Formats: sequence, structure tokens, C-alpha cells
Amino acid sequence: MDNKKIKNILASVKDGSVSVGDALRTLKHLPYEDISFARIDHHRHLRQGVPEVIFASGKTDEQVLSIALAMHKKSGSFLITKASRQIFDSLNIRGAVFYPESGLISVGEEKKKKGTVLVMTAGTSDIPVAEEAAVTASFLGSNVESVYDVGVAGLHRLMDTSEQIRKAHVLVVAAGMEGALPSVVGGMTDSPIIAVPTSTGYGTSLGGLTALFAMLNSCVPGIAVMNIDNGFGAGCLAHKINVLVNRK
Amino acid sequence: MDNKKIKNILASVKDGSVSVGDALRTLKHLPYEDISFARIDHHRHLRQGVPEVIFASGKTDEQVLSIALAMHKKSGSFLITKASRQIFDSLNIRGAVFYPESGLISVGEEKKKKGTVLVMTAGTSDIPVAEEAAVTASFLGSNVESVYDVGVAGLHRLMDTSEQIRKAHVLVVAAGMEGALPSVVGGMTDSPIIAVPTSTGYGTSLGGLTALFAMLNSCVPGIAVMNIDNGFGAGCLAHKINVLVNRK
Amino acid sequence: MDNKKIKNILASVKDGSVSVGDALRTLKHLPYEDISFARIDHHRHLRQGVPEVIFASGKTDEQVLSIALAMHKKSGSFLITKASRQIFDSLNIRGAVFYPESGLISVGEEKKKKGTVLVMTAGTSDIPVAEEAAVTASFLGSNVESVYDVGVAGLHRLMDTSEQIRKAHVLVVAAGMEGALPSVVGGMTDSPIIAVPTSTGYGTSLGGLTALFAMLNSCVPGIAVMNIDNGFGAGCLAHKINVLVNRK
Amino acid sequence: MDNKKIKNILASVKDGSVSVGDALRTLKHLPYEDISFARIDHHRHLRQGVPEVIFASGKTDEQVLSIALAMHKKSGSFLITKASRQIFDSLNIRGAVFYPESGLISVGEEKKKKGTVLVMTAGTSDIPVAEEAAVTASFLGSNVESVYDVGVAGLHRLMDTSEQIRKAHVLVVAAGMEGALPSVVGGMTDSPIIAVPTSTGYGTSLGGLTALFAMLNSCVPGIAVMNIDNGFGAGCLAHKINVLVNRK
Amino acid sequence: MDNKKIKNILASVKDGSVSVGDALRTLKHLPYEDISFARIDHHRHLRQGVPEVIFASGKTDEQVLSIALAMHKKSGSFLITKASRQIFDSLNIRGAVFYPESGLISVGEEKKKKGTVLVMTAGTSDIPVAEEAAVTASFLGSNVESVYDVGVAGLHRLMDTSEQIRKAHVLVVAAGMEGALPSVVGGMTDSPIIAVPTSTGYGTSLGGLTALFAMLNSCVPGIAVMNIDNGFGAGCLAHKINVLVNRK
Amino acid sequence: MDNKKIKNILASVKDGSVSVGDALRTLKHLPYEDISFARIDHHRHLRQGVPEVIFASGKTDEQVLSIALAMHKKSGSFLITKASRQIFDSLNIRGAVFYPESGLISVGEEKKKKGTVLVMTAGTSDIPVAEEAAVTASFLGSNVESVYDVGVAGLHRLMDTSEQIRKAHVLVVAAGMEGALPSVVGGMTDSPIIAVPTSTGYGTSLGGLTALFAMLNSCVPGIAVMNIDNGFGAGCLAHKINVLVNRK
Amino acid sequence: MDNKKIKNILASVKDGSVSVGDALRTLKHLPYEDISFARIDHHRHLRQGVPEVIFASGKTDEQVLSIALAMHKKSGSFLITKASRQIFDSLNIRGAVFYPESGLISVGEEKKKKGTVLVMTAGTSDIPVAEEAAVTASFLGSNVESVYDVGVAGLHRLMDTSEQIRKAHVLVVAAGMEGALPSVVGGMTDSPIIAVPTSTGYGTSLGGLTALFAMLNSCVPGIAVMNIDNGFGAGCLAHKINVLVNRK
Amino acid sequence: MDNKKIKNILASVKDGSVSVGDALRTLKHLPYEDISFARIDHHRHLRQGVPEVIFASGKTDEQVLSIALAMHKKSGSFLITKASRQIFDSLNIRGAVFYPESGLISVGEEKKKKGTVLVMTAGTSDIPVAEEAAVTASFLGSNVESVYDVGVAGLHRLMDTSEQIRKAHVLVVAAGMEGALPSVVGGMTDSPIIAVPTSTGYGTSLGGLTALFAMLNSCVPGIAVMNIDNGFGAGCLAHKINVLVNRK
Repeated sequence: MDNKKIKNILASVKDGSVSVGDALRTLKHLPYEDISFARIDHHRHLRQGVPEVIFASGKTDEQVLSIALAMHKKSGSFLITKASRQIFDSLNIRGAVFYPESGLISVGEEKKKKGTVLVMTAGTSDIPVAEEAAVTASFLGSNVESVYDVGVAGLHRLMDTSEQIRKAHVLVVAAGMEGALPSVVGGMTDSPIIAVPTSTGYGTSLGGLTALFAMLNSCVPGIAVMNIDNGFGAGCLAHKINVLVNRK
Repeated sequence: MDNKKIKNILASVKDGSVSVGDALRTLKHLPYEDISFARIDHHRHLRQGVPEVIFASGKTDEQVLSIALAMHKKSGSFLITKASRQIFDSLNIRGAVFYPESGLISVGEEKKKKGTVLVMTAGTSDIPVAEEAAVTASFLGSNVESVYDVGVAGLHRLMDTSEQIRKAHVLVVAAGMEGALPSVVGGMTDSPIIAVPTSTGYGTSLGGLTALFAMLNSCVPGIAVMNIDNGFGAGCLAHKINVLVNRK
Repeated sequence: MDNKKIKNILASVKDGSVSVGDALRTLKHLPYEDISFARIDHHRHLRQGVPEVIFASGKTDEQVLSIALAMHKKSGSFLITKASRQIFDSLNIRGAVFYPESGLISVGEEKKKKGTVLVMTAGTSDIPVAEEAAVTASFLGSNVESVYDVGVAGLHRLMDTSEQIRKAHVLVVAAGMEGALPSVVGGMTDSPIIAVPTSTGYGTSLGGLTALFAMLNSCVPGIAVMNIDNGFGAGCLAHKINVLVNRK
Repeated sequence: MDNKKIKNILASVKDGSVSVGDALRTLKHLPYEDISFARIDHHRHLRQGVPEVIFASGKTDEQVLSIALAMHKKSGSFLITKASRQIFDSLNIRGAVFYPESGLISVGEEKKKKGTVLVMTAGTSDIPVAEEAAVTASFLGSNVESVYDVGVAGLHRLMDTSEQIRKAHVLVVAAGMEGALPSVVGGMTDSPIIAVPTSTGYGTSLGGLTALFAMLNSCVPGIAVMNIDNGFGAGCLAHKINVLVNRK
Repeated sequence: MDNKKIKNILASVKDGSVSVGDALRTLKHLPYEDISFARIDHHRHLRQGVPEVIFASGKTDEQVLSIALAMHKKSGSFLITKASRQIFDSLNIRGAVFYPESGLISVGEEKKKKGTVLVMTAGTSDIPVAEEAAVTASFLGSNVESVYDVGVAGLHRLMDTSEQIRKAHVLVVAAGMEGALPSVVGGMTDSPIIAVPTSTGYGTSLGGLTALFAMLNSCVPGIAVMNIDNGFGAGCLAHKINVLVNRK
Repeated sequence: MDNKKIKNILASVKDGSVSVGDALRTLKHLPYEDISFARIDHHRHLRQGVPEVIFASGKTDEQVLSIALAMHKKSGSFLITKASRQIFDSLNIRGAVFYPESGLISVGEEKKKKGTVLVMTAGTSDIPVAEEAAVTASFLGSNVESVYDVGVAGLHRLMDTSEQIRKAHVLVVAAGMEGALPSVVGGMTDSPIIAVPTSTGYGTSLGGLTALFAMLNSCVPGIAVMNIDNGFGAGCLAHKINVLVNRK
Repeated sequence: MDNKKIKNILASVKDGSVSVGDALRTLKHLPYEDISFARIDHHRHLRQGVPEVIFASGKTDEQVLSIALAMHKKSGSFLITKASRQIFDSLNIRGAVFYPESGLISVGEEKKKKGTVLVMTAGTSDIPVAEEAAVTASFLGSNVESVYDVGVAGLHRLMDTSEQIRKAHVLVVAAGMEGALPSVVGGMTDSPIIAVPTSTGYGTSLGGLTALFAMLNSCVPGIAVMNIDNGFGAGCLAHKINVLVNRK
Repeated sequence: MDNKKIKNILASVKDGSVSVGDALRTLKHLPYEDISFARIDHHRHLRQGVPEVIFASGKTDEQVLSIALAMHKKSGSFLITKASRQIFDSLNIRGAVFYPESGLISVGEEKKKKGTVLVMTAGTSDIPVAEEAAVTASFLGSNVESVYDVGVAGLHRLMDTSEQIRKAHVLVVAAGMEGALPSVVGGMTDSPIIAVPTSTGYGTSLGGLTALFAMLNSCVPGIAVMNIDNGFGAGCLAHKINVLVNRK
């Protein structure tokens, strides 16, 4: 149940087509339903700016599918992250889309887009994380552009994208290894930058901890940092920021 | 040199009072000046949305003072972080303000404020970090409110601030120890949340690493995380996001 | 050999049906028997309030089965943790029960229950650990209730369980990721809380270390913390505390 | 405001001497009062079984003293941990007691004691932490006994205390270095054991992390573990468990 | 080439059956032979008290077999650690013995044994490491006894072995989890103790690091600590110490 | 009370000058005496081959002095480690010796020495740790030689000591930084080597952890490793091994 | 596109066969081409002294092959690291060479060699990393010699190579476990040493971190350290240094 | 004793003014002299390309001064690192120079310089480390240039130095915080780069570990990495590489 549906209920209250009591009951009894192993929270969009998302890894396929079904009935739109194609194939929902690189499944994507989120990667191996961010932000209603493989060792490649960088309202920058790209991009724009460390690398990349710590220590003040490989979170935050543009 | 001054130059170009060539030279030759041990970057505001800041710790008082002098001449406004009162006393600049709890010195604060940044802390010991964020965001031009000592172990105290939480455009949440406050606040609003781990605690608080990791693993998607005790960064990011409100 | 059996022996001594010498020999020679690779300790219940438990992982199926057989003959009741269904199928003991989610096998569960242990989880993925705790405490003789998937990002779901929380004598709270649930629950009751970090999460969840450290740093004083994923230990401790209720 | 006072209010409601409305207002408006930098929570005892405690380190003496004053007016009884003698000397409250080894200040200790909490240490250097636990549990209303310097390298010393160990309802065991004492004590009793790692040691004792991890990995199931040097938490938990004895 | 063979050469020099020059050449030219990927060192026994050992993991079967062949020709006796049965089956050497639990292969074990090495484990899962130590020490010429599964949570089991503990010249104590056994055994004897942490455990056992650090911090002074799971090293050291007994 | 005194008691029993009962009582009642904050264990020498030692750091001077006094009355000989000169000056015991570099105080050193312990260091900064080992082993009755500053970067210096290395029964090798010396020395002798990592170094020396881990991973099998800076433990172990020489 | 080709273009400009404008366009438009998921950088050789390299792990075979094809067309010569034989078999390029031990594929190796790079290993298991370095340096145009399995525990083996060590212009030393070899070699030459820690070892070798830290703390000043297992980087650096010899 | 002096001896041998035997004895007996606590190695220059250096921290002033005196007599030239002005004032040696920022003392600097070493820093706080490198390389005989405060967040400042970067034979790049500068510089030159992580920063800069790991994971292949704050090592390596230029 997204903001729009709730506004409709409230509007119906305002125009008298629904009584206050009925509206109250609808709103109050909806917050979540208990399907024994997972309490589904249909109001989350209202409170957190994102629809319910099912984090598929660590759940059985059966659990994922029954949660998805319950969500589909009530809210209409939701995401499944870290899903397998097998889950997608079992999911009999019209309009569901599977993004194989990042394992995202989206149901009921927002049609109208606004603002601009620019998603960048330092290398080729960071693309799955970047696309999780891109698909998530787009799903929620942001225009998304992406520029991949523009690592700091080749500054001229980065310079060629400086126009795109300057125009974006929010930037998501995914990088593994030494995680230096957000600092360099941060020197080229005054828009908010969301840095996502990836687990790309080996040895002392420490599964992404090195990139994470590098980003937290950026000499550019005010870079927002996410958990390692957390493209979904980056997409959510990018959208939350992006929707502020033009908001009254 | 902030955005406003640069716009003035450009406007002068437009209306013909300054030639394109002169403007070019002014802009090009200004980027930084070399005072031997520190290259002062007067264009940073243009590129990063924040004025130059002098990170005082790790510099001698003499270095801080001469950088400050150079900045004062060119830009007019800047911040000094982690400064001692001694530095402030030696700093003979009219309108400079010293914030003793966080050791911030501000010179030339922005007068007109916009939007709302809400700064919160879990405990009393997190206040210095929170105030660094609050002063920074205010300095840059954001309206700032603050609510301190509303930790998760007393939910009713937190509930009393739910109205303030819902109204804020951006929230900065500082917490040490288990770092749980951003997650709980994150369940109460859909505005962007900037979590700042503090070094409050002992033993396995690991100097703030525990709070940091907890925040990076928040079950609320899209929380922006800062380095430990980085109130300044949080203030910058909060303002960068806050200025997007009403931006065309 | 549990407390009850030992009390019977002592009672027999008291009423003269067994001589002191015989009782002494029975007690002294019983402590353990050596089956070459594992010394089985039939007195552990007497000393530690829990029966012998076989930690199956790291042992061959053959080892598990022969230890189980030896225990069955002497004590009658015991647990096997982290067991496979294959072990259960080979275990030809009447009344043995297999809990597939947590891999527990129980033999000879206590019939009479007392007190109330409430087992809670933050998310769906924490359920296996929680159920290991629930089954263990129940096996030992505690009444157990459970409430799953009530994470801190949706406080209203948690609030709905406040009555159950207040009534429980002991609470086991399992959570991964940022591990914040025990702190929030800790603000809602003055009964002892046992926090179990789980390895749910990725990246900086560090296999459960982040949740562990967060729990150790809870702003609620006096939360008991267990090893990562140690549902069995939590169940034991919950029961040890729960039996104190009404004890003279 | 402790349970007893609240019960008095409720009793007054029952016997008619206070109206329901007045009681409600008293209870509702009391939860905390805002003294600008710290929200004092007078209901905490009701919810968490412990009175408000002021964690002095990280606060200025002035902050500690004004919080203490506010608490003294409302609740009458509270603890200050990690306090200096200087704070105690400035604190003009009758009946306040200063424990110099652990830096605890208690105001308004509970008179009637119940049950038995046994506090043990492995070495001489663990005593400050152990006494913080002992004073806290006693303050809250538990009988406390203590046995110090009974480390595992001299088992006969430990054996001499086996009678005390068996009789205690709850045990607090503080140990640094290899942190082995809780495991050995755990083999001698079936009462709940609260293990407190201390920062005693050097090199790979890692400031107490080694003892902490050793305790979390105890081969005795169900040992409750606290943060490093957290004697206060151990005392709270010990009392919370101890009060369950004889509770209906 | 072990000490005995070298002594024979020297004796032959002494009795004149071999010239000094020939002996010199034999000794000098023998140190190692180069078989391209591994320089085999036939003098190691002379310098380090142990024969050459082939650490099979990280080498191809072919590499292991050709090194083994070269050793067999020159020295006659050697060990292969972490070997598979497959390697053993391909190894066509008379008198080779395979120890399947620890994956050791021994060729040419010393016949005459001396002294007493006692090998102990805390649990059943520590046996593979303990047996690597036991077989190694025995191979080198030490009498070896072993007592398994005598963890600290059941002191009476340990007490039953106190006679064996007191009689041993050297003790090897393998333990995982909290690694407390060496400290307790260390309180029962004044012979040297070699502690071997094992990777037994989960969560904060950190793959054996917790047991390792616990052992390094033992309150018993002078415990020798080995790398995690390094039964082979423990066996070597135990023998090196054991041979000092009765040495002139 | 050391081995010799106990043997005297037993001899007196044998020759009839002391009755068995008296001897038993003497032995049984002596194990330790309780001086409230520290249980002094006069039998430790009997069980662990070392006299009682007072670890001064973490204790007040008063505590150290009263424990020392109690020990002096009963045993006659003991060590104080990490002591200040101030403690030594207050300690009014004849024959006490202060070693200022390592902060050791010895009382009642063993006169007759046996065997040979060789103590080596890689650099000048490792000497305090090495001398703690040397004084301890000598105190207990071992002949001790020492060779300092023979790090691996200058092999010829090391080669000059090869004769001393080969002759020693046991070697203690202290090294900080990369901790490589024990491996190189280990290639030059087949006697037991005790490696002591020191906290010498900076940055990634990690306070001695790097040297510790390097030593645990030595390519020379069977090196005994101690805690960081634990010269005392190394001295104890060296003596425990050294006394085995010539033991029947 | 390597230095040679670029020099040819510039020479053509000098002799007039190519106009400055054409050269500029050739150079400017060549820097990289976008093949959607990877921006191939043909100018890297010019800027970094090494050709483009494809890091195959973390990419699909299809991605590797299409990047390789694009490179082959433009530059003619490049390396693929961590490649499988399957990739090599699918790669239909004449003159491509597959090095199975290290998984390197080279295309278009430099014919003329200069200087001397000596590649050494401590053990047999370090060879794959060493060969990655050796093949890379040779590919780029350096003469390469190698000496394997000369660990510090057998100094005489190392001494036999002292002539080779002294003659080399640059040395690459790969070692796992305690990582001591670079220090010892560093004492035998004044040429630059590049230390490569390998992940050889177990337990506290920590996947190569111990060797890495040991190398960073070498008592020999000025040892260059690489990431764990980074043979490719070592080969590049060795060549970059080696080419300085005889450079004007 | 540096290379030049040794060459003189050898030349004297060649021209007959010194006999081979005398030269041999001079060389052989000189390697080091024992002044009890430190073996001074006058041949180190011969073997490692650097003179003896005294690492003052961790030594008493007396030790530093007597080692310095001994060196001065024999070699004439040496460095003292991490020295205080007090040591310098007590050091009565003509021509000694004190560099207060880095605490270096140089005695007998090389007059003739060659090649070019460029030393760069990301920030102002990295200068002490950079100057240690610069002074060391210059002392040994390299021309040194330096460019400070050219961090990656302001690329245009870095671009202004691109000419200097391209011309240098070797580059030393010191950076703390996220340690990104070496990667960016690495994209601008094909000369060897020596990266020195500094301990500049706070929180997750982890005392320089973050910069260290970032540098080890640079996307530019072949960057040489030093220990944290190890400017001395960087200067040595830079000179060792720089001297290769023009070497036959």
C-alpha cells in the first residue's frame, strides 16, 4: 500500500465517500498481517519511502513465494532482492520483471519518473551492485542514468563524464578495491554522493572492508556510505533524496 | 569564494560590466593559492557545496592561523573544526564564533536559512558530535532543530518527538554504543537519515566501530552512514540534501 | 541421569532400601563412562542444570550414534544439536523428535512445564536460531511462547506484543544485522533478557559479530549475551533462570 | 520513582484516596523531565528493574551533579558509575556512599535483601569490576557474597569454595586474561552464571576481547556474557534473576 | 639423513675407515638436491631435530609423490602431513603407514622410544589435531600416551587423569572453543605444556583465534603455544623437549 | 615453599622426626593463606615448577607490598614483575635485587645453576623483554647466556654466534617488527626454541601481533610461542625444559 | 597501443608524413573505446608503463573474450590474469600463450629483454604467485631468472644463490607463512626488493595477512610490498624499475 | 663505512698500496663492533645501499648518543630517525643537521645528487612523513623535489603538477585517510610509485590501516607500499631505484 492509495482513502474521507470510522479501521487494521513466519508490513511505504522488499537470501523459496503472494494482494508493488531465476519462474505475477545480473525482481514499477540519479562504477565487476541501485531507484520513481568502468587510474575517461556528473541531482558511486572513485567524483560536483563499497578485489580488499573504510575517510566532506554490496540501500537513499527536488 | 560571488561575476559578464576574458582569468587564476604548506582552494564551494574547512587537529596553531587568514581575505566565510579556544582567541576576525563543546569556529555564517534538518542523539555523550553537525548545517544555510538524549531504551521519550521527526526534510542521528537509534527513527519517517556513529562507550564499543557497523546493517533501507564522530561531514551532507528542497 | 533419579537414590538411602555404601558406589562410578573417543558425563545434569547434549557438527555420524546410544541407556533423556535428518533416521529410539529447521533431536522431553520463556526474533531469517532456543527450553521443562519478525523498523508491530513481553519471566531475543531488538525490548520489561546474535546479514554484519557487539553495548543495563547463533545456550540459560521462579 | 511508589499511587486509586484521573496524570506526566541536555527517566525502574544510573565518564562534573540533583528530588535512589571522589565530594546528599575502588556512588540503597548473589574473581586485578557488580546487586536488594582470586591455575583454592558456589542463586564471575574461570565454575553448579570479561592482561589479551570471546565459547552451555569491565550490567542482571526466586 | 647416519659417518672418520676429505665431501654435497620445484633438504634432521616433512596441502599429488620418492632414496624416513588416502595409495613404499583421521603418512618410524609425552584433548572434535601430535612425537622416538575428551566443564573427569599428568615429561594439550584446558592442566604439573588451539567451534571461536589468544594469556606461566591446528609442530616440540631427558 | 622444603618435610617423615599426621597437616593447611584481596599460593612451585610471582601492574603499591611480605615469611623466594623502583625501595627485604630495565625484583634466587639457556634478541629495543626472561630462568636455577642485536638483516652477525646457538639446551629468541629471527635460528639448532614477540615497532607491527603471528607461522616446525612481551613466561618455560636435562 | 607505436606516430609527425592535426586526432580519439560494460584503455601503456590487463576473475568468459578481442585489434599485446584454460581455448589469437600454474595468458610478448629481475620463493606453494610475476616482467621486456624454495630455515640453500642475488637489478621475493625471506635477502643486496606475501599457510597465517604485515615491518629499510598473491603487480613494478637501468 | 670507502680500500689493493691480506682483514674484522647493547654494522651500506640508521624511539638518549658516537668514528655518515631536539643538542658532531618536523638528524650527507625523486602529499598533515622520505633520499644522493597538499578532491591542483610528475624518475606519495592519491598519480606516469600510508585521520582511518589497505588494492598495477608513516623506508627505496638510472 503506497502513499497514493493512502491519500485516496484520505481524500475519500474528505469528500465524504468514506466515513472517518471506516477509514480509521482500514488504516488501523492494515498495518501488517501475520502469515506465521513473517509479519508483512503494508504501511512501510508510508513510513520509510520504500515499499516492502523481500530479502530472498536466507529464506526458502516457499517462504519467498508466499510472502510475495501476500504482498501482491495488498500493495500491488514490491521488490525481491537476491532472488534466483527459479523464484522468478515460480512467481506467477503479471508485470514482474527479473534483472538477472543483480537478482532483483520488481513487481509494479512506478510509471512517472522525476529528477536524475547517476549511477557510476569504477570497474566492470562493480556492475551488479550498481544495477541493483539503478533498478531500485528507477522502480521507486527516479530517472536513472549510468556510467560504468570509469576508475581513477584513467582520469581522462572520468573527465569525459563531467557534464553528466554536474547535472545529476544525486550520484551513486560503486567501487571495490581501494574505493577511491567517490572522492574523485566528490571533487567534481556539489550534489549528494552515495558511495557503495563492493566486495570486488582479493587479499587485503578484505571482502570490501577496505573500500568501505576508504569511503568513510574520504577527504570530500559529506559522502553517504552504504554497507558492502548494498546496491538496494543505495537505490532507496538516492530516491529518497531525489524526491526532495521540487518538493514544497 | 562561494556560489553567490561566482554568480555575480557571471552576471557581470552577462550585463557587460566585466569582459569574458577578465572573468575567465578571475575564475581560472583563483582556484587556489600556494602558501607553501597548504594549497588553499577557494573554488571548493563551487564544486562541493561546502566552503573550505580547516581541520585543526594535526596542524600547529601557526598553520591554522595563517591558512585562516588567507581564507578570510579571499572567501570571507569558512569553518575551523576541532579547534581549541586558544586558536579562537588568537584569531582576530570580526564575527567569528566559537562553539566550545565541539571545538568549531565559524566565520561568515550564511544568513538566510531554508528547509529543516533535525539533529538527534541517543545519549548525552553524543552531543558534541551532534552539535558539530548542527552548527555546520546551519552555517551553510539550513534551518536546524535538535532533540537530544532520546535513546531506544525509552521508546516513549522518542514517541514524543514523532511530530518533529515527520516534519524534518533530513535527519542526522548520532549514537554510540549499540547505535540502534537510526533504525528506530528510520521506522518513523521516509525522509533521508544520516547516521553518525560516535565513539561513546567502552570495551566492545571498539571506539565507535560497533555503532558504525550496526548502522551500516540497519534493517531500514537507505540510511546514509558517516565516519565515527564525523559531525562535520553529517552537517555537510544534511545541507547538500536539504538544499534540493525547492530547487528547480 | 537427571536430578530426579539422583534424588530417588538419596531417598532410598534415607529410607534404608539402599545402603550408604551402595549409593556411594552408584554415584561415584556413574559420573562418566569411557567409550574411547568421548567420555559421556551422566552427572552433568546434576552439576549444570542441563542434560548431556551432543554437538553433532564436527563428529562423524557413527560417533554421534554411539554416544547417543550410550546416553539413552543411562540417562534416558538428551539432546542432539546441529543434526541431519540422516542421523535422526538412523537413530532408532522411541520418542525421539526431530526439529528440521534447527536440526535438533530431542529424546525424553520433560513433561511438566513451568514459568514462561518468550522467544522473539527481529526477522524471518533468525527463526532457526530462535527455535533451537525454544525447543531446548521446552525440553528442559519451561513453558515457551514465541513471536517472530518484530524488528525495530516497525515499532507498531512490536507494540502489539507488549502484553506478552511484560508477562514473560525470561525473554530470548534473536537478531542479526544491527542487533537492535534486545535494546528496544529491554525498554519494555524488567525481566531478564537473553540476546542471541545471529549470522543473518552480509558485508559488515561480519557473520554476526556486529550484532554481538551491538548487544554487548546495549544501553539497557544487564542484557545477557550469547555466542553467535547459539540458540541452544540461550535455551539452557532461559530455563536455568525460569526454574528459579517459585523455587524455595 | 520505583515500583513501590507506583504501587502506592495505584493503591491510593484503589482505596479511593486518589482519583483515577489524578493518578493517570501523575503517571503520564512523570515519565521524564527535560533538563535540556539529558532527559531524566523516572519510570525506568518500572520498565527495566533498575533505577536510573548516571554513567559519569564522558560527562562534565556539572552535568553529573545537576542530573543527580534532579533524580534525587524525584526518585530518591540512584547510582552514579565511574565517578571521581571529586564528584562525590561536591554531591551534597545525605546517605550517599562512595566506593572508591570501582568509582560507584549510591544514593538510597534498598534495605531489605533477598536471595544470594555470589561474586567471584580469577585474580586480584579483577576486583574493581567485581565490586561494581557486587555493590549494584546489593543496592538493588540482593544479598551478595564475594570470593576473590580463585583462578583456574590453582584448582584446590576453587574447590574450597564449592559449598558457596552450590548455594548461590546466581553467580557473577569476573576474569581477564584467558577468561577460563566461568567454564570451571560452570561445571560446579546448575545456577545461572554471569561472566564478566575484564581488561586485565596485556598483549593478546586485547583489552579484554580474548576473555570475552573465551567466555562466549564456553563449553558449559548457557553462560550469560557481559561487555568488557561491565560490572554494573552484571550486577543488574544478577539482581533481575535473583528477584525471580520466590516470585509468584 | 638423520643424526644416526651422520654419526656413523663421523665414527667412520674417527676409526679411519673413511677419510676426512671424503666425509667432508659427503656431508657438504648432501645438504639438498634440486628437483626443480622443491629443494629437498636431507640435513634438516641434523639442524632441527626433525626429518624433512612434506606439507601436502597446496601441492599437487605429483609434486608430493616425487618429493617423497627423492626423500625415500636419501633419508629413508620422513612424514607427509595433510595427505589424502589417494596419495597414500599411489605411494609405493614398504612400511609406510597412513593415519586417516589426521591425514599423516609416516615412512620409517623410529623403533626405540624414550620418555613420556602425554597428549590430551578437551573434546572429541580436537582428536584429529591431537593425533597428528601423537603420531609425530612417536615417529620421532617418544613414548606417547593420550587422554581425550577431558574438558574443564567436568573437573572430576580431569582429576581421574592426574596421575598420568604428573608422570608425563611433556604434555600436549589440544583444545578449541574457549581453550581453557591448558591452564587447568598447568595447575596440576610442573612439566612443560604445549598448548595447541584447534579450530573447533563456531561464531566467536573465530576459527581457533579465541582458543589461541586464551592460551597465550594463560594465568599459568610458561605455556608453549602453537599455531591453530598445528598438531605436527606440537609433536615436534614435544619430542625435542622429551629427548633432553637423560641427555648428558 | 619450594620443592626442596617439601622434600625436607617428607624426609623428616621418612626418618621419623616428623609424624605422618603432622606432615599431612603441614602440607594440607599450607596451600594458601587468604589475605583478603589475594590468596597466596605457597604450593605453586610444587605444582607448576615456578615460585609465586606478583604481577605488579594493575595492583596498588600497598597490595604488592603486603603480598610480598606474606610470601617472604612463608616461601622465602619469589619474583615481582613490572615493578617500579619505588616498590623496590619500600620493600625492606634483605637480598632482594632490582633489575631496572625489565622492572623485575627477585627475592631468594636459586644458587646452584644447571644446563644452558641462551637468550637472544633481534634488536636493541627487545632487550627489556629478553632480560625478563634471562633473570627469571637464572632465578629458577638455569645457567643463562645472552646475545643481543643479531637481527636477520645482517646474517654474518648471527653466524658468529652459531657455536653458542648449537651448544644451548634451550633458546629464548625475542624479536619485534617482522619477528623473523626465531625461524632463522631454528634452522641452526635442533634444541627447543621459545619465541617471544615484542611490541617493538610501529604501524602494522600492531603492538606485537605481527611478530606473534609470524612466529606462530614459522617454517621451522615446533617453535614455542609466548604472549607479546612475555619475557617472564619465556624464562619459566626455558627453565622447565632445561631442568629435564639430566633428570632421571 | 604501446610506447613504441606512439613514438612511431610522433616520429611520423616529425618527418612530416603525418600532419600534427591527424596525429592529435589519432592520439586523442584513441584513449579508450566503450564496449558497454568495459571502457578499454589503449593509452594505459603510455601512462603506466604496462599494457592493458584483463583481470578475468569476477568477469564472465564472454566479457573476458570480447574485451580481449577489442584489445587485440587495437594494441596487439595484452595480458589476461587468473584465466582458465577454457578461456584460453576459446581465445582464437595467434601467439597467445597460456601459463597454467598461474592462469596467465599473454598475447604479443615483447621480444627484446633488458636488465635482470630475480624472482625467488620461500616454498613450493609460493610458485604460482612467483610465476605470475616472472611471466609479467618477461612479457614487458625484462630478463627474468628464478630461484624457488629457498626458505629461511635452511640458510645454506639461500647462501648458494648469493651470487645471483647480488647480480640482479631488482628482486621479487614471494613468501607466505611468516614472510621472513625478504628480510634475509634484503641483508644480502642493495638492489630494490619487491616482497609479495602469499596466502600459503593456515590458521594465523590469516590468508596472507601475517606475511604481509611481517614484510611491511622488515628490519631492512625500503622493501616494496604488494597486495597478497599479487604476482602481476610485482612483475609490473619489477619491470618499471628494471627499465630505469641504462635509461638516459 | 660506505661504498666509496670500501672501493678505496679495494683500489689500494689494486694499486698495491695495501696488501690483499691486510684488506681482507680490514674488511672481515670491520663488519660490526659490539658495544654491549647494540652491534653496529659498518658494512650495511655495502649490503643494503643505505648507511646505518639509528631508530631513536624505544632507546634511551644515552643509547642513541653512544651508538651515534661509535658510528661517527667509523663511517662518518649516518641518520638518526624519530629523534628529539634534545638528542640533537647533546650530539656534538660538526655538520649534523636536525629536521624538526620529522625528527631526523643527518650526519655526513652525500654531496653529489643524481636523478629525480618527487615527493608528494595529499594533505598538510602528511608533510612530516613526506619530509622524512625527502631528507633520506637526498641524504643518500638523490635530487628531491616536493609538492604538498594536492589531494584527489581537487583534481585541478593535481593537474597543475602533471609536468613534474611526468619528469620524475621515482615518486613517493604520502597520504592518510582514504589513501587515494597514489592511484590517481599512478594514472599519470609510468615511473615507479612508492606509496606511504600515514596515520592522518580518525575513526575508521584505523591509524593508517585504511590508507595502507587502499594503497595495496590500487587499481594501478605495481605500486610499492610501505609501512604506515614509514617515510624513512620510502626515502631508501626511492634512492635505491633512482640510482639504477644511468647505471651500467
